[in-house]
Amino acid sequence: MELMLTQINPHSCKTYMIQANGSKDTVLVDPVLEHFREYWALIRERGLNLTHVIDTHTHADHISGAAALKDVTGCEYVMHSEAPAHCVNFRVHDGFEWRLFDDISAKVIHTPGHTQDSVCLILDGIILTGDTLFLDDGGAGRDDLPGGDPNLHWKSLRKLASLPGKLMVYPAHDYRNRVPSSLSQQKQTNPYFKPRSKQEFTRYLEDLRLGPADWMKDVLKANYACARDPRAAWIPVDVPACEVKGTLEPGVNEISVGIIPPSVLTQMLASENPPVLLDVREQEELAGELGHLKGIVHVPIGSLAHRLQELEKYRNSEIVTICRSGARAYTAAQILKKAGFTAVSVLNGGMIAVRTSK
Amino acid sequence: MELMLTQINPHSCKTYMIQANGSKDTVLVDPVLEHFREYWALIRERGLNLTHVIDTHTHADHISGAAALKDVTGCEYVMHSEAPAHCVNFRVHDGFEWRLFDDISAKVIHTPGHTQDSVCLILDGIILTGDTLFLDDGGAGRDDLPGGDPNLHWKSLRKLASLPGKLMVYPAHDYRNRVPSSLSQQKQTNPYFKPRSKQEFTRYLEDLRLGPADWMKDVLKANYACARDPRAAWIPVDVPACEVKGTLEPGVNEISVGIIPPSVLTQMLASENPPVLLDVREQEELAGELGHLKGIVHVPIGSLAHRLQELEKYRNSEIVTICRSGARAYTAAQILKKAGFTAVSVLNGGMIAVRTSK
Repeated sequence: MELMLTQINPHSCKTYMIQANGSKDTVLVDPVLEHFREYWALIRERGLNLTHVIDTHTHADHISGAAALKDVTGCEYVMHSEAPAHCVNFRVHDGFEWRLFDDISAKVIHTPGHTQDSVCLILDGIILTGDTLFLDDGGAGRDDLPGGDPNLHWKSLRKLASLPGKLMVYPAHDYRNRVPSSLSQQKQTNPYFKPRSKQEFTRYLEDLRLGPADWMKDVLKANYACARDPRAAWIPVDVPACEVKGTLEPGVNEISVGIIPPSVLTQMLASENPPVLLDVREQEELAGELGHLKGIVHVPIGSLAHRLQELEKYRNSEIVTICRSGARAYTAAQILKKAGFTAVSVLNGGMIAVRTSK
Repeated sequence: MELMLTQINPHSCKTYMIQANGSKDTVLVDPVLEHFREYWALIRERGLNLTHVIDTHTHADHISGAAALKDVTGCEYVMHSEAPAHCVNFRVHDGFEWRLFDDISAKVIHTPGHTQDSVCLILDGIILTGDTLFLDDGGAGRDDLPGGDPNLHWKSLRKLASLPGKLMVYPAHDYRNRVPSSLSQQKQTNPYFKPRSKQEFTRYLEDLRLGPADWMKDVLKANYACARDPRAAWIPVDVPACEVKGTLEPGVNEISVGIIPPSVLTQMLASENPPVLLDVREQEELAGELGHLKGIVHVPIGSLAHRLQELEKYRNSEIVTICRSGARAYTAAQILKKAGFTAVSVLNGGMIAVRTSK
């Protein structure tokens, strides 16, 4: 058996495409929403069968493209059982193992610390470490954000240290084009693996974070405050995740939007103040068999974060987001809510539900 | 138009059945899992069309029957947008209004305090207050549990006080067979409505809870610890909710179980250590068109909490819970997890997914 692993992003935030044995079956790990259109084009052009998207944890530095990929392809969306995202339909716990490809198993190692829902995945000689462990002197994702816990991270690192040293490490971030190397090498080079008591480890992290995180926070807070300005409309994804996250309030990955069934949308459209319909599918889908509703505003999900300025006039209107099955619309509603739009609901089940409801 | 509201539980925990204009369309508010079988029998015998189940908040004193009812009937499951339960498919925010019946609207008032996701619902002259407000000297649901916040409750009560006084109040609990009366009357008789500053209100709650809550906690902690003893297998639902909740750890309504797609179940069944399959549908469904899988253990969802003793031998086994569409199985997995079972997963999409997957 042969595993093929390709990093497909142009920046330090890593998305891995995994295939095996030359088959069309494909798995994407930690896809970034901003590149959704490229991923989808890749899948169609090569005739790939996307079977799983996996998020190693709830990301705070970028919006996950997993929901969108699940929406267009119908693939399984895998995360740890404690992940807050709603549309995850395959939730795994520590030690869970399943055949990701015909003859290659994936095994889950729950490694909370950076987030509660962090996992590492072992498959056929490699380990995907997410933000639990970066390469060499890169350290790891920070633990001082909501849900982070240095004590748990310390324990999780002990867990990783007990795994076979020959596993090749593929992290979710790398800022200096480091080449993946073995877990043994990390044990020698990564400061997070330096033998320390739990107290020493926590103190080490506290010392480490002072300074740089603070000025980064200010820079990025400014960036974020400018979200209404189209010239600086979104958080740059190529900024180190481990320095960015503190500037984001929790919420992007939380439930804070309405979800309505098609019958209620019909009622709303017949009312005196019909909602704004925001369809976030791709252009080519609007003319497909599901068609589209009358009077939609159309902004594909991958560019929504960059085009909020165009929607400024709807800031205080009732907005209903729409896609194929509901997953992209959910991501869209989170983006709008995050940007301060006040009344956003997701059309549950998307255009499929509209076309199949009585 | 005429609204018919019937309380259908035999105890102090209230479930309201609502109908309008003599139509078969029916809404259930705050159904209790333990009575699921009775509710379902009622629906079938009278040929009712259950359109919505609504939980006024995340209950901690009983397990909601809403997921189970959604699973068998396909109705909408309505809660506030911040509710943690996964299978809620219609999420509403403050001020949201929709036609619950042909010519009767329901309006949502978000009233956090007892829980973050508490709502009151106004429809045609009545207000369903959940645990935000009980009748007369009954006070309200307590605020000293996870997610509770006296400051928010104080604000929410101000919101209620500003509503039309003639609304008839229907709370989620009543321990002394009080008769629903108007909001005006509550303003005169309910101690929670006594004019107080936020600080005074918080102090009032602190004073109120001392004592009785503590001994109740001990009694119920004992009850809960006996969950393995079939004679004391579940928390009595007729104990005042406002005194019970402190004994339950958070978790019953949280995500802490695996969710697997049918393809992974197939893999698990073919492995050396196949999982225990726990089918929680009703007896009559096993012989229905969806049939059932080979070798299932069968315990209907409504009696699962009382029959944990029978499953004791599977405590450390991998268990997969199964139902029609996945909602009852999710509730079942939560019950098992709560009782300390270590590896529980839900079959995502239930038997429908098994029968429709390739």
